[in-house]
Amino acid sequence: MYDVDAIRRDFPILSREVNGKPLVYLDNGASAQKPQVVIDAVTKAYSEEYANVHRGLHYLSNVATEKYEAVRGTVARFLGAPSEEEVVLNTGTTEGINLVAYGWAMPRMEPGDEIVLSVMEHHANIVPWHFLRERQGVKLRWVDTELDGSLDPQKVIDAIGPKTKLVAITHLSNVLGTVVDVKVIAGAAREKGVPVLVDGSQSAVHMPVDVADLDVDFYAITGHKLYGPSGSGAIYIRRERLDEMRPFMGGGDMIREVHKDDITWADPPMKFEAGTPGIVQTIGLGVALDYMSGLGMQNIADHEARVAEYARQKLEGLNWLQVQGTAPGKAAIFSFTLDGAAHAHDISTILDKKGVAVRAGHHCAGPLMDHLGISATCRASFGLYNTEAEVDVLVEALELAHELFA
Amino acid sequence: MYDVDAIRRDFPILSREVNGKPLVYLDNGASAQKPQVVIDAVTKAYSEEYANVHRGLHYLSNVATEKYEAVRGTVARFLGAPSEEEVVLNTGTTEGINLVAYGWAMPRMEPGDEIVLSVMEHHANIVPWHFLRERQGVKLRWVDTELDGSLDPQKVIDAIGPKTKLVAITHLSNVLGTVVDVKVIAGAAREKGVPVLVDGSQSAVHMPVDVADLDVDFYAITGHKLYGPSGSGAIYIRRERLDEMRPFMGGGDMIREVHKDDITWADPPMKFEAGTPGIVQTIGLGVALDYMSGLGMQNIADHEARVAEYARQKLEGLNWLQVQGTAPGKAAIFSFTLDGAAHAHDISTILDKKGVAVRAGHHCAGPLMDHLGISATCRASFGLYNTEAEVDVLVEALELAHELFA
Repeated sequence: MYDVDAIRRDFPILSREVNGKPLVYLDNGASAQKPQVVIDAVTKAYSEEYANVHRGLHYLSNVATEKYEAVRGTVARFLGAPSEEEVVLNTGTTEGINLVAYGWAMPRMEPGDEIVLSVMEHHANIVPWHFLRERQGVKLRWVDTELDGSLDPQKVIDAIGPKTKLVAITHLSNVLGTVVDVKVIAGAAREKGVPVLVDGSQSAVHMPVDVADLDVDFYAITGHKLYGPSGSGAIYIRRERLDEMRPFMGGGDMIREVHKDDITWADPPMKFEAGTPGIVQTIGLGVALDYMSGLGMQNIADHEARVAEYARQKLEGLNWLQVQGTAPGKAAIFSFTLDGAAHAHDISTILDKKGVAVRAGHHCAGPLMDHLGISATCRASFGLYNTEAEVDVLVEALELAHELFA
Repeated sequence: MYDVDAIRRDFPILSREVNGKPLVYLDNGASAQKPQVVIDAVTKAYSEEYANVHRGLHYLSNVATEKYEAVRGTVARFLGAPSEEEVVLNTGTTEGINLVAYGWAMPRMEPGDEIVLSVMEHHANIVPWHFLRERQGVKLRWVDTELDGSLDPQKVIDAIGPKTKLVAITHLSNVLGTVVDVKVIAGAAREKGVPVLVDGSQSAVHMPVDVADLDVDFYAITGHKLYGPSGSGAIYIRRERLDEMRPFMGGGDMIREVHKDDITWADPPMKFEAGTPGIVQTIGLGVALDYMSGLGMQNIADHEARVAEYARQKLEGLNWLQVQGTAPGKAAIFSFTLDGAAHAHDISTILDKKGVAVRAGHHCAGPLMDHLGISATCRASFGLYNTEAEVDVLVEALELAHELFA
């Protein structure tokens, strides 16, 4: 039994007011709120058990190291990774994808090589590939979405040609809510010998993920969207790819020996974790993932699907509002525009007056905005603690905005 | 009046016991403990004021953005930077130096170009330059320390030749405690047209820093050593250098526009801050810097100098113990070895039984260990909250270790 009222009490910020109204937090696509267990773990780490990790031999350093390293196993279990040695801990999806770009792609791609990606990628899964285009003459092959915002996996597969060196694709669009059939794409790509990188920044928040079942090569997640601390994250990297990679950031911990004219590297995954890591935020990420697993990822998905269906019906009833993306099985992310030339920013400002937090803008998805022919949307993105009652507050606030701008 | 007892009460972890003994935390060179105001700021941010920054228009996002962005100014004031636009917020010194290596050095260095660095650099200020050596044929020119661990600035200046493109140097050795006369080096380097990067990871903790007075080009600091949260940090970059740099990590926030075949960058410093940043840890860093400034950096330096002098005298009295580095004006960092072939790790384990936390190993300073002809040391590194009484506990524990291993 998914008791959303009890769950909401786990999140202290949800009981606060904004502009004199109860907070209705629908900006989860940008970042999620944190349960008390995560906040408590952070406080405890700093108040009672803090020291640097790996390099110490004293009590506090050992405690911190054990707690930090345990998160590697937690992430591996959360993602279904075959081994925790295939988990690189980092600060989030952006760093994860840049690691792949600099550590794996740049040393092996030549002018004319191609990267296949969808038009609905987030900038985190675009800009690093633009670097390869600008600096090394790599070609980006874009696959458009269908009219309903779905992505035809066959079109992605068809875009894989003899020059393709990587498929870089989101598992769940942060704007449209579209879920991509990564498994089908990865199966076909594997037959063609092309590795697949998945931006799991949104997907891992909303549904069970099993990277072994998906059979992908890289799967990046970001902790602050997973109800964990800011500045935490991880990336799963298949062992064969790990072994092919050169280091990205240089510093302490990722080396075996350093001399004046000679250097050797630590084994993966340490080879890709330079310097003092985000110790406490990573410990907090582990607690957040355990919290989600405790609720059950399928239970979370089922709850969000109910809220999403309710929201879909309600928003459909507003004939002056256009939802972008109506693909079957889409997640509880609703981007929309309003009739009457009201700018998305103005709408979000009015919603804010009613305590409703949504995001407005291009959502770090420039090519998708070009494809849709719009410059900005409002986005209401739901999380595990949101309710149908909050959908009603959103709709009421939207009706007010419509009246003001009509 | 510097009231160290009152200051100690600001740090909750200092009242705990380890192995049944009061904690004597002398591992500050690896990471420092956090005052309650920093822990409270982190808790408050997550419990009451959390949202993603920059891209939101709702109340919580605006609050988080204001608090986050204010830290840029705090860092600028802390370092004496002429403008907060010359401050890039990041996760620490390792990321800061890698940013310079990838964003500034790699695009402009050619085979045979040279980087001057000292033999006592930390791996964070070595490994990124080894990348340039391995990948681009850049030569590393090493300047040795003197017998007492001091670094003769003239030798650094003399190492700057016509092929030198960068001087990369620590301001304060994490092993020897040696303070480097960065100002003299930077003045001479500027006359020769060579930029200077300073690893300020240790120095900014222990003494007032003014980058404008030092007249350097890059000055990297790390938050977790500055009594701030793990995963926080910043780098000062002189505007001329900022303008010369290409982006390092790609993702959200650092772009102006992203299209399928075209991309433009945000202005510095945002150009160098990709994706969702370490929001809460950066807010905590600001509080930590304010805490230090509240005590007064010169007062902290004076207090630590008193404790260092007391420790120096005490350790000098142990004729079976060799302190590495006795340069005049050195900071309160004491690396040492013991007679009798006792391994540094064994010594630190015994100290730990007495509640004394020190570090043992190569301290991420491989070339310095080679230079000293040793493989490891124990290191007792002091912070603003340490006392003469703790020196006595250290010495007592060392005497026990000596007895056991003699």
